[in-house]
This record gives sequence, structure tokens and C-alpha cells, in this order.
Amino acid sequence: MSAKIKTKRANKSADVKISDPGLADAGAFWYTERHDGHSGNTFKINRIIESTQSKFQRIDVVETAGLGKALILYGSLMVAEGDHNAYNEMLAHVPLFSHPKPEDVLIIGGGDCGCLTNVLKHPEVKRATMCELDKEVVEVSKRHFPRLTAGVKDKRAKLIFRDGKNFLETTRKKWDLILLDLSDPVGPAAELFQASFHRTIYERLNDDGILVAQSESPFYNLDITASMYGNLSNIFPQVHLYTCHMIVYPSAYWSFTFCSKKYHPQDDFDHERYKRLARKMKNDYYNDDIHFGSFALPEFVRRAL
Amino acid sequence: MSAKIKTKRANKSADVKISDPGLADAGAFWYTERHDGHSGNTFKINRIIESTQSKFQRIDVVETAGLGKALILYGSLMVAEGDHNAYNEMLAHVPLFSHPKPEDVLIIGGGDCGCLTNVLKHPEVKRATMCELDKEVVEVSKRHFPRLTAGVKDKRAKLIFRDGKNFLETTRKKWDLILLDLSDPVGPAAELFQASFHRTIYERLNDDGILVAQSESPFYNLDITASMYGNLSNIFPQVHLYTCHMIVYPSAYWSFTFCSKKYHPQDDFDHERYKRLARKMKNDYYNDDIHFGSFALPEFVRRAL
Repeated sequence: MSAKIKTKRANKSADVKISDPGLADAGAFWYTERHDGHSGNTFKINRIIESTQSKFQRIDVVETAGLGKALILYGSLMVAEGDHNAYNEMLAHVPLFSHPKPEDVLIIGGGDCGCLTNVLKHPEVKRATMCELDKEVVEVSKRHFPRLTAGVKDKRAKLIFRDGKNFLETTRKKWDLILLDLSDPVGPAAELFQASFHRTIYERLNDDGILVAQSESPFYNLDITASMYGNLSNIFPQVHLYTCHMIVYPSAYWSFTFCSKKYHPQDDFDHERYKRLARKMKNDYYNDDIHFGSFALPEFVRRAL
Repeated sequence: MSAKIKTKRANKSADVKISDPGLADAGAFWYTERHDGHSGNTFKINRIIESTQSKFQRIDVVETAGLGKALILYGSLMVAEGDHNAYNEMLAHVPLFSHPKPEDVLIIGGGDCGCLTNVLKHPEVKRATMCELDKEVVEVSKRHFPRLTAGVKDKRAKLIFRDGKNFLETTRKKWDLILLDLSDPVGPAAELFQASFHRTIYERLNDDGILVAQSESPFYNLDITASMYGNLSNIFPQVHLYTCHMIVYPSAYWSFTFCSKKYHPQDDFDHERYKRLARKMKNDYYNDDIHFGSFALPEFVRRAL
């Protein structure tokens, strides 16, 4: 039994003010991302660095007053220089350190390249493929976020610009890790939150493969988080939810669903490899304690799963 | 060596708009609590239920559009019905389940009574004393937050309305647990963040006593969190930082400093007692996994301590 993920809107950017006729509308250059019209995050914007409309979505790069440069896609703040990169580090390193030989990694989405760059911090990775629909997001990110996009220059990186669903349905290749680094289930990414796509992913993973999917805010979108957890539990033998603190996302509390054919994220954590790589990785958020602690779920989340 | 905690402002409510001449100024009834003038939380307000000025501070009770009723003290949002009570549960239950016989508990501050009510969920507690400066906060809370203030009616509860510092300096009593449930180091609570007060607390704890102090946002006020941790490490043999996700506080990420003369918060966690009480306690946030997981600190926090 699979519950269909609501795609009408994730309610996330219901009242975002960054929309035509442009940022000046945000009111004295405050960007406010509201949830369901009643609560939100607000950030002061010093200046708009770049505003473009790609074939798929509106893309804005702004200079915030407190958190450095930020990338806004489709009206949702995706990444900021001062957010400690929690989201990208948690999406990449938790599965990478849970798999003993993560050689082939596929990222679906991930246009800001922060996930790719973190994946490539692991010398075990031989090939990291990123399949992103919107080439323009990558180009804009390369211009403005050099630290995030450093991995693009790595010889192991391969970028493919096409629809992730179509790509996975037509390829014959298999991967050790597939990471779903998608924007919210609204707009271009909506179809990639459905169970049918998750089943396709299962087929394209090796027999000991791992999928991690970002699964929205357990505070504001607990229904989406719980539906995804339920759907994925019907497909994978092991499903575990973990979370991080991500300041620029609605509620500042974000979840990831770890789905595995074989390895357990805690029992199979590679302590030796972590000790060897930790210092070189220069992470701001992820570490071994967080790897374990991030699977602890508060009572209101535990009850919903 | 003790670093003095900066008391000028915690930078937390630097640009709070809920101030004279009243909430109507917040712009179409949006309450915005800004950090350092550059970032913040914003909540839609349906109506102002009560606004008073006590001898010590301004007190507002509002009905938010998304999170139920909320209490605002001195311009900072303290508690909302829809925030899952994370702060109060984490402040109370972590030390209570780490102490084998927590009979005498003292709360300094804690005017909304949420901490007191959680302390009294433990049948082991024989006497829970709350020393709050501002009686008006308790009266307002009793009128509007019956779930939070349920503990006040408990026969084991004793409320004292006076300055916490003065109270502890003059009493001869000792406690098993002292919980510092203070508003930010600005305004009436400023002095209670200093090392001299922490030394007084040490003296007033039994030989196996535990202190837990709220220690601000590790995201926005990492300097305060780290200073408190440093100061307290000079006084107590065991000091451990833990955190929670608290939606209505700036950055939605909050820290607590656990200071102990004897017991370790993980090694001495009372699994048996937790199992016996868990269901009855009806917590929304705290549970055994969170008890352990909340001590995992992200790399940027670990580095600062």
C-alpha cells in the first residue's frame, strides 16, 4: 500500500514574496519564506546578485546580511554560505560511511553541487554521476559558490543534464549509492517523490546498495515525511529516518530517509575509515557523533512513522 | 579562568517589532523576532489576547495563526502551544533520568511553569520549588496555558517569588537538581548567566547533584554557549552540552549545559525507570533515543567548546 505524496504544494513556499515583479517587492529587502501562510524564516538581503529564469524555474542569487550569499530556486532558499552546509554533508556522508565500498554514486538533482563535492571527499568513490534537470542552476552555482561546486572539476565527476526519472528508466547501469537531492515536491521535482520512482531506484541499485532521499521538514511537513517513510518501507528491507538542523530551511529541521538493501547505518558505520578521513574532510556539521545521534527522533516524529 | 558572559544583549531580540506603541506596528500582525538585525522567525498573529507591563517586563499573550497561543516576554517568544514543548521537556527529563533519586528539585526562573509541570511527572520528586522573579508571568500563564501550568496545583510544588540569586545566596538548603530556566542574558535575567552565580549553585547542590542551564542558540550565540560551557567546566567535574530543536526560538536550535558532581547523563541513564514512566508522561519531544542523541554535537559546535 503506497500513499501518494501530495504534490499540489508542499505548503512550503505558499507565501514567498520573492516573485515577479522581483525582489524589491519583498519589502525593504527582506526575503521571507513562509510555511502555509502562517510562519516563516526571514533574511535581510543586501543586494540581488543575479536573477534569471531558466527553462524550468526562476533562479536568484542574493547577498544576505547575515549568512553570506544564498541561492533561491523557485522561490525557496536552497543554500547559504553561512548555513554550515548541514544538509549537503548529511545527505552525502551518512550513506558513504555506512557502505564498505561506495565506488559508484549517483545523485539525482543536486544542482548547487554541494552534495557532489561532499561525495568526492571520499577517495573510495570511483565515479560520481550527477543527473540534474536544469543546467542553468549548475552554471549559476559555479559562478557564485566556488566552495560548494569544487567537486565539479574532479575527474571522477560526471554531469548529465536531463530528467532524472527518464534517465533511470532507460539506463542499464547500477549504483552502490543513489542520493535524491531534490527540491520540494512542487514544480519540476514533484514526480520524483512518488513510490513508482522509488521502485525504479531500487532496481538500479546493486544488491547491497543504499538510497538516501531528502524527506522534507518533520515539523511542518510531517505528513510528507511519514508518507515517504511508509512508501519506502514497502520497497526496501531497511528504512531509517535521520534529521539535521538546517537554519535556512522552513522550521530549520530537516529529514532524510535512509533506505538500504543490506547495510545498517549504525551497525555498519566504518569507524576506521572515518578516523582516517575526518580531518581532511573539513566538515562543518557532520562527524561520527552526529552520524549516530541524527537517527534519534523526537516523540512526535516517532509516533507518526 | 572565567570569561564574563556578554550581557549587553544576546543579540536575540535586537529588532523585535513587538514594542510600543503595540503589536499593530508589526505590520499586518506579523510578529518578527530578529537576530542581530539580519535574520529571524516570523509568525502571523490572529489577535492579541493580553498585553501587560509587570514590574519587571512587558508580557504579551497572542494567538498565532499556525502554532496556537504564544507567550512573549520582553519581546522574545518564550513558548507556543504548537512547539511540541521541546525546551521544557529537555530541560526537565534529561537530568531527572540521569539522577537515581531526584527528590528535591529547584527551578530558577521558569515562569511559564512548563519545566515545573514536567519535573512533577516524576513520582520520585518529593519537593519541586520554583523561584521566579516575576509573579505576573505565572499568573498570566495560569490564565492562558493550562497544560503548561498543570503542575502548579500539585501538592509537591512550591512557588517563591523573588530574585533567584538572592534566594540561593541566603538559603541553607541543598538540592539534588537545580534547573536554570532563564530568559536571555539581557534584562532581568542577565546576572544569572555569570560564573559567580554558577559557583553559588554548586554550593547549594548535594554531593551528587546536577545543574542544567539553558545556554542559548549554538547557531546564533555560539560565543555565549561556549563561554558558559567554559565557565561551568571550571566549577563542575562533569560538563556536557546537549541540544534540541525548538521551532519558536531564534535559529530553532537550542542548547543546554548539563553539569554534574557525580552522575553521567548517558552512563547513568535510568532505563528501567524510563520504561516504567514513558507512556504515562505523554511527552511530545523527549524519549530515550533523544536523551542519548541530543548530546551529539555538530562539528562547528564541537570545535567551539
